Amino acid sequence: MSKLVECVPNFSEGRRPEVIDAIVNEVRKVSGVKLLDVKPDASHNRVVVTFVGEPQAAKQAAFHACAKAAELIDMEKHQGEHPRIGATDVIPFIPVSEVSLEECVQLANELGQEIAGKLNIPIYLYEAAAKIPARKNLPDVRKGQYEGLKMAIAKPERHPDFGQAKMHPTAGATVVGARQFLIAYNINLDTRDVNIAKKIASAIREAKGGYRYVRAMGVMIEERNMAQVTINMVDYTGTPLHRVFETVKSEAARYGINVVGSEIVGLTPLQALLDAAEFYLRLEGFERKQVLETNL
Amino acid sequence: MSKLVECVPNFSEGRRPEVIDAIVNEVRKVSGVKLLDVKPDASHNRVVVTFVGEPQAAKQAAFHACAKAAELIDMEKHQGEHPRIGATDVIPFIPVSEVSLEECVQLANELGQEIAGKLNIPIYLYEAAAKIPARKNLPDVRKGQYEGLKMAIAKPERHPDFGQAKMHPTAGATVVGARQFLIAYNINLDTRDVNIAKKIASAIREAKGGYRYVRAMGVMIEERNMAQVTINMVDYTGTPLHRVFETVKSEAARYGINVVGSEIVGLTPLQALLDAAEFYLRLEGFERKQVLETNL
Repeated sequence: MSKLVECVPNFSEGRRPEVIDAIVNEVRKVSGVKLLDVKPDASHNRVVVTFVGEPQAAKQAAFHACAKAAELIDMEKHQGEHPRIGATDVIPFIPVSEVSLEECVQLANELGQEIAGKLNIPIYLYEAAAKIPARKNLPDVRKGQYEGLKMAIAKPERHPDFGQAKMHPTAGATVVGARQFLIAYNINLDTRDVNIAKKIASAIREAKGGYRYVRAMGVMIEERNMAQVTINMVDYTGTPLHRVFETVKSEAARYGINVVGSEIVGLTPLQALLDAAEFYLRLEGFERKQVLETNL
Repeated sequence: MSKLVECVPNFSEGRRPEVIDAIVNEVRKVSGVKLLDVKPDASHNRVVVTFVGEPQAAKQAAFHACAKAAELIDMEKHQGEHPRIGATDVIPFIPVSEVSLEECVQLANELGQEIAGKLNIPIYLYEAAAKIPARKNLPDVRKGQYEGLKMAIAKPERHPDFGQAKMHPTAGATVVGARQFLIAYNINLDTRDVNIAKKIASAIREAKGGYRYVRAMGVMIEERNMAQVTINMVDYTGTPLHRVFETVKSEAARYGINVVGSEIVGLTPLQALLDAAEFYLRLEGFERKQVLETNL
């Protein structure tokens, strides 16, 4: 298995299938890249595209898709419920296997410079790629949205990280960055008391003194008549699944409650599950390349 | 990830590098197949070749390698310490991912017929592919070796499964079959008392009333001054790693001993570790395709 990054660009078009197709085709055309998902949302008037590939191939695919979006989307005419600042609104790179977050930051820098230089679209760097702390969070970067940023971009504190301090006349601006893979993870409890789930969620989430890379809530799952701790694992390399699972088990026991099971919603990088197997089997000297399939 | 089988043919040549190369090149030439390992042994005068691939590609590679071995190896002149009946001595197919053992049995049948038909080499089917119970175990099939089988093959009970009851004049006969992936797995104990490791080995191994697919011994690891339960997991789909690990933990506790760690020696199919993660995290509704890398 070679170096692999995920890229999840968001484009400001969720209604015209021919425009979405044209953008997605730019991704499909690049060899070494595999398209995983295309999720258009008409009310947001936005499409989320997910693909994975070798880092340079992923960068190339992102660039061509961004160029096509700039050609076909006019932000002067765009309306939708979701905040956005450009035809290509945001492009995050996410490490999947044998790639570090730092390499994804580097990739975001390269892509940002290329878009600014060749397409004349101002670029903001966010999350792990942010050069300015105030740009770590996407909502802060998008403040005022496309319409507001047209004026605000001239202020020094809103100058882009790459390109001129002037919106592209139709494509606006784009946010590029790097972040860890987010694993959506739920843990189900054998209780109908949602308050216990809420207390456990508080115990594990960063905001309340819990694990740094955990966002969690307690909710009631009516179909199963069961309380659930619903979790966003925002960096499984820093806070692993098994540690959160074990802590939830131990916190639940304090109320005489058991963990019935857990669910991974959607995709996970292989490494997150290998880490769990390695932990529980107390594996010594285990290397990823011992997994037969990773040699292919 | 597509269907994947492993194939580990053994050829009766461990001394002439040019012959080994010529055989291995037949494997390298086939697209859809990846060579993982070549292990020649001069005193055995034998080479073990390991490759993986899509089932039909793996079959094709095995056929061409077998044909080349028949061309270059003369069993009339072969000497070596390891039991063998032919130039290509044995060809097992092993399921790795998204392939059942039954599909590997089918593959062994197809390959056996092809070798018998095109190369005129009599074929015996063994292990999961055995049509005759007495041929399940390889040593039974190889009884008398090349020299003895030349005569014995004429007896009805030694007739091959495919081909004529007559040895190929230089290539002898070949055994083809299917088996599960063997995982070499060790569990280390915080004791220097090898008798405890031996008792635990007895508790888990089939021969002594333990798990059906477990072969185990207790040994002393002098370098670490530590007793170890050393295990061959001959079918991890029937007896999973985590069940054996938990049983060893519980048997060790009976002597006041702890499990320090475990080791996977060499390769393992991904599924064996996913099964462990799924067990310990109590995953509900988990599907292999949720592992991002398996979509590529």
